[in-house]
Amino acid sequence: MQKKEPIVDESGDIIKQEIITSGHRLVGYSLVPDDKVKILKAFAEALDNHEVDVIVSTGGTGYSKTDVTVETLRGIFDREVEGFGEVFRFLSYEDPQVRSAAYLSKATAGIIKDKVIYALPGSPDAVKLAMEKLILPEAPHLVFIARSK
Amino acid sequence: MQKKEPIVDESGDIIKQEIITSGHRLVGYSLVPDDKVKILKAFAEALDNHEVDVIVSTGGTGYSKTDVTVETLRGIFDREVEGFGEVFRFLSYEDPQVRSAAYLSKATAGIIKDKVIYALPGSPDAVKLAMEKLILPEAPHLVFIARSK
Amino acid sequence: MQKKEPIVDESGDIIKQEIITSGHRLVGYSLVPDDKVKILKAFAEALDNHEVDVIVSTGGTGYSKTDVTVETLRGIFDREVEGFGEVFRFLSYEDPQVRSAAYLSKATAGIIKDKVIYALPGSPDAVKLAMEKLILPEAPHLVFIARSK
Amino acid sequence: MQKKEPIVDESGDIIKQEIITSGHRLVGYSLVPDDKVKILKAFAEALDNHEVDVIVSTGGTGYSKTDVTVETLRGIFDREVEGFGEVFRFLSYEDPQVRSAAYLSKATAGIIKDKVIYALPGSPDAVKLAMEKLILPEAPHLVFIARSK
Amino acid sequence: MQKKEPIVDESGDIIKQEIITSGHRLVGYSLVPDDKVKILKAFAEALDNHEVDVIVSTGGTGYSKTDVTVETLRGIFDREVEGFGEVFRFLSYEDPQVRSAAYLSKATAGIIKDKVIYALPGSPDAVKLAMEKLILPEAPHLVFIARSK
Amino acid sequence: MQKKEPIVDESGDIIKQEIITSGHRLVGYSLVPDDKVKILKAFAEALDNHEVDVIVSTGGTGYSKTDVTVETLRGIFDREVEGFGEVFRFLSYEDPQVRSAAYLSKATAGIIKDKVIYALPGSPDAVKLAMEKLILPEAPHLVFIARSK
Ligand SMILES: [Mg+2]
Ligand SMILES: [Mg+2]
Ligand SMILES: [Mg+2]
Ligand SMILES: [Mg+2]
Repeated sequence: MQKKEPIVDESGDIIKQEIITSGHRLVGYSLVPDDKVKILKAFAEALDNHEVDVIVSTGGTGYSKTDVTVETLRGIFDREVEGFGEVFRFLSYEDPQVRSAAYLSKATAGIIKDKVIYALPGSPDAVKLAMEKLILPEAPHLVFIARSK
Repeated sequence: MQKKEPIVDESGDIIKQEIITSGHRLVGYSLVPDDKVKILKAFAEALDNHEVDVIVSTGGTGYSKTDVTVETLRGIFDREVEGFGEVFRFLSYEDPQVRSAAYLSKATAGIIKDKVIYALPGSPDAVKLAMEKLILPEAPHLVFIARSK
Repeated sequence: MQKKEPIVDESGDIIKQEIITSGHRLVGYSLVPDDKVKILKAFAEALDNHEVDVIVSTGGTGYSKTDVTVETLRGIFDREVEGFGEVFRFLSYEDPQVRSAAYLSKATAGIIKDKVIYALPGSPDAVKLAMEKLILPEAPHLVFIARSK
Repeated sequence: MQKKEPIVDESGDIIKQEIITSGHRLVGYSLVPDDKVKILKAFAEALDNHEVDVIVSTGGTGYSKTDVTVETLRGIFDREVEGFGEVFRFLSYEDPQVRSAAYLSKATAGIIKDKVIYALPGSPDAVKLAMEKLILPEAPHLVFIARSK
Repeated sequence: MQKKEPIVDESGDIIKQEIITSGHRLVGYSLVPDDKVKILKAFAEALDNHEVDVIVSTGGTGYSKTDVTVETLRGIFDREVEGFGEVFRFLSYEDPQVRSAAYLSKATAGIIKDKVIYALPGSPDAVKLAMEKLILPEAPHLVFIARSK
Repeated sequence: MQKKEPIVDESGDIIKQEIITSGHRLVGYSLVPDDKVKILKAFAEALDNHEVDVIVSTGGTGYSKTDVTVETLRGIFDREVEGFGEVFRFLSYEDPQVRSAAYLSKATAGIIKDKVIYALPGSPDAVKLAMEKLILPEAPHLVFIARSK
């Protein structure tokens, strides 16, 4: 949902492709600058769309001053899915291309009302790993749980 | 900004009137249900409007399960102006029509980037008191401070 | 509910008397030491009693190391009624017998599920002020609000 | 301590068996519904029992609206043992039967005064893993540390 | 302790004078810029001085981006004396020279180990009011309470 | 920076050696007792030193009552690097000499202004693992990120 480079959005393209090829429907897409208010607005619009079950963002999860996606989301999550970031960082560490750089990401997930949000790093490899190993296998179940009872 | 009764919005009308008669410009107005996502969206849109300096909402500051304005705002404030709610409740208590009921409101204020938000109770008298005694006298100065340096 | 001196409990007696003479029913009473676990247990038992609407405790709201009532309650409140402590301290300050000592109390109130809890200081005068000026006039309404919708 | 199915409590039985066969003494057992007040009461009673060193609960650690065990415990922990949930989720991920579902649990541990609490998921396999790999090997040492000095 | 204008420090002078004329001993004084690390260092040094019982700072309690004293202190307080700021703002409001501007200050107090810290606004009038009405009458008692048991 | 045994500081020596042999410059060193104020003072002094980019402490990350390093640092971090502790505990668990004991450490990292702080356990093996696998490979990059834009 959120990406710095407006013209080429490789990580956003991977997310879209993974969603479609896994048989889910892509409801929307937007490019948002590293700005708390713009981020809030984009997420609020997606959350207000009754066709949306899951929101996946890429970028803004690092430790530069412009990285505010996770801080912004933590203020609005009903519940943070704290295990997502942990398992994602553990999987990233296991990748010899990433190793210790794994701990430089604040990637996380959370639930707002009956929707699930994933905030992924900006790197295409990280996005691919998260989508294939963690999000596609569990997101439908997590949405079901969040809506149960 | 946020009001339960969609047709007649007496408190919203008072806010608009106070803004205009005090010489400020009314930039926008919206009616929002007691829903976290709709509230977030409305505030995000106002915050994203470069013509807006101050946002005043009414309603949703009590202790019923539907009152979620303050909880929603606290998740997104950069800084809460904690003294506003205190002084507002103290002034409300001094009003013989309110007295102890003053403590049943979570009315508050806060700063996001360079804009100031006030969240007032739904009662017309409360709104009038807050606008005349606390908001109109200080909001321009608070906006100036929030933008300084 | 919680009181330091086990034999004579003047403040507890005032609370009981105020409850009864104002026409409410006294459902239970217990003396609890300044111990987090004992305090949790006493509140949990009262909260689990279907006859209970409101719980009023006295003591444990100061700044000695043994004063842990408010810290314990804040961990379990669904919502803190933040205005209660503020208005109580303002009223205490107005009492020439109290004045600046008013700020040495953390007296507060909160909601857990459909019940309201008030945590008052240990002093008989403080308890009397809080009961007559703030609790008896508003507690039934606050319980009603907390249960609405 | 806390389990959803009142009649058959397979995970509770595993915990009891693991405690006994490892040479520790089982001091108590209780079945508690997914209710914040009942959960608080059950933990407060166990914490108030001088024979108890360690409390192990099962269930209530997921993301359905009824899962409130972890949220309730976090309000009363003196210190959360944050590494427990992390290492538990990492071990769960390594189990080919669990994999990505590992991140759907908020399993955690914490210290209250001189006692250690573990909150495990409701699944028998998860309980067995946690008991054998993480709790039995470290709980006595953690209790010793929590009581030291 | 903390003051912006290095040469003339009228508010600091008032604090020193109030301390001395009320019969207490002035142990130290330092001028600190609006910088989180410098503020932390100055408070840590004062807290590490066994001759110090009470620390009073002036400035840095407003809502400009450079005002970070209160945010810094809240990270290190063992307990915040939340009532101090409330009563101070209520007294400030009652002053016809201040009125609604009272809510623009985050003035607060807190306890670290066995010492009490007061963070006052930068204005000489505010400092005088706080010292005479709230700090001098209660600080010795609050230190005594913080050290009791 | 912080170590319990004043005479022999094996873990501190390992940190110094790792810093020097990896080609970085050792700017300072201090031994600090398990005391919140002394810890704050030592970190504030290091943070106030313009030659310092990274601060590495050892000890005080466990669950005894004297272990307060992490609690103290969390109060002053601008941003916690939450992934560091997770990946460190995962690596520790993988070490057959550590296994489940890995979850007994609160080791963490964080950013204050433009400096990075690592808080490691007191054990020489833990310090060696953290330095070689996680800190030396990423600290320069993390400092660069924290200072970017
Ligand atoms: Mg980025
Ligand atoms: Mg309302
Ligand atoms: Mg200032
Ligand atoms: Mg240690």
